Amino acid sequence: MEPGTSGEENDEDLRVRRLPTRASYDREVIDAIADAALVAHVGAVRDGVPLVIPMFCVRDGDHLLLHGAPAAGLFRRAAGSTVCVEMTVLDGLVLARSAFHHSMNYRSLVVIGEPESVTDPEEKERALEMFVERLVPGRQGQLRPTTTKEIQGTTVFRLSLDRASAKIRTGPPVDDEEDYAFDVWAGVIPVERNFGSPIDDPRLHSGVTPADNIRRLVERRDV
Amino acid sequence: MEPGTSGEENDEDLRVRRLPTRASYDREVIDAIADAALVAHVGAVRDGVPLVIPMFCVRDGDHLLLHGAPAAGLFRRAAGSTVCVEMTVLDGLVLARSAFHHSMNYRSLVVIGEPESVTDPEEKERALEMFVERLVPGRQGQLRPTTTKEIQGTTVFRLSLDRASAKIRTGPPVDDEEDYAFDVWAGVIPVERNFGSPIDDPRLHSGVTPADNIRRLVERRDV
Repeated sequence: MEPGTSGEENDEDLRVRRLPTRASYDREVIDAIADAALVAHVGAVRDGVPLVIPMFCVRDGDHLLLHGAPAAGLFRRAAGSTVCVEMTVLDGLVLARSAFHHSMNYRSLVVIGEPESVTDPEEKERALEMFVERLVPGRQGQLRPTTTKEIQGTTVFRLSLDRASAKIRTGPPVDDEEDYAFDVWAGVIPVERNFGSPIDDPRLHSGVTPADNIRRLVERRDV
Repeated sequence: MEPGTSGEENDEDLRVRRLPTRASYDREVIDAIADAALVAHVGAVRDGVPLVIPMFCVRDGDHLLLHGAPAAGLFRRAAGSTVCVEMTVLDGLVLARSAFHHSMNYRSLVVIGEPESVTDPEEKERALEMFVERLVPGRQGQLRPTTTKEIQGTTVFRLSLDRASAKIRTGPPVDDEEDYAFDVWAGVIPVERNFGSPIDDPRLHSGVTPADNIRRLVERRDV
């Protein structure tokens, strides 16, 4: 995601020196990105044309679970059964000494595969719970049980992580050697995702306050 | 991006009552989302298979400008010339009284079109400046001028916003009427993107500190 074509991947010297950008097929790396991102960007082909839409996504072991309403719409109209899921966490703005070498630090993930529809009611219920627990750990146990009708009305797709790869950029800018003499500030501005104070639903009964799990979630920095 | 299939878009009653999710073809709405998102998710078709990768993107009037190194790689290998750019800003976690109606507040944008390569050196230079100014307003004037070689080495693609649409969810959860009697906390947890304290490049000369524009940027909340 470099604004300038820094050619970091093609320049052996730079790679050896700093390794700012690297690709990975390591499942631990891939899993960590899937667990950190909240939104998946799901691409399918419709009438030969690519279509990308955002979806909520949660990792379940060796699979991604995609929530069904948007997925069903996208996949139903898609010509082929192969989809691409991309998830990206933006970690920082990389300010170099030249416009050309400005960049971003990020962790991204691409998975290609053929999603399967999850049809077993118990698996669908578990997926729904995983979606809720991904948003707010401990939330599911505070809710009324999910009904059979709701489970029937839920569509979930599962996509294997077998064909997944990650790409990560970390660290400081990589400037041209002669530019290091130029005294403009250079470095990284971290990008964080934080939660704000919970906003009560207008129909909340008075005295109903966020439980401890919500308060703990909101206090965390860079989630 | 609802975890549960709430059917908000198909239920006339709910739409009239709350309008939590709405589509828009309004250019002001579309422009505002493009200007708020930092990362674009760009889909193309390669060998009949969709491929989505993250890119840095900035709006220039009626077009999106895509930075070239990743775009060139994706577009070169793509079978068709049509691409899809999706940008999403996550605004909040929507905590309903049932698992089924949990959702997210977001603003998203989809643009479909045929990107053109920007070849004019002056336009390429201006695009490079726009990328830098999008990251840190006022930065370009603090840097040494971009060289002819750097401009030659920069690839930029331009995509018209003619075929763009937006989708937005705002507001509180939409629960089943009978669930409003259930006293669990419900509402919205805002999601913010903030900057952390700038991290000096290890090779920065002593005494070189971030300029005022960087300090102002870092102080802003929910950028």
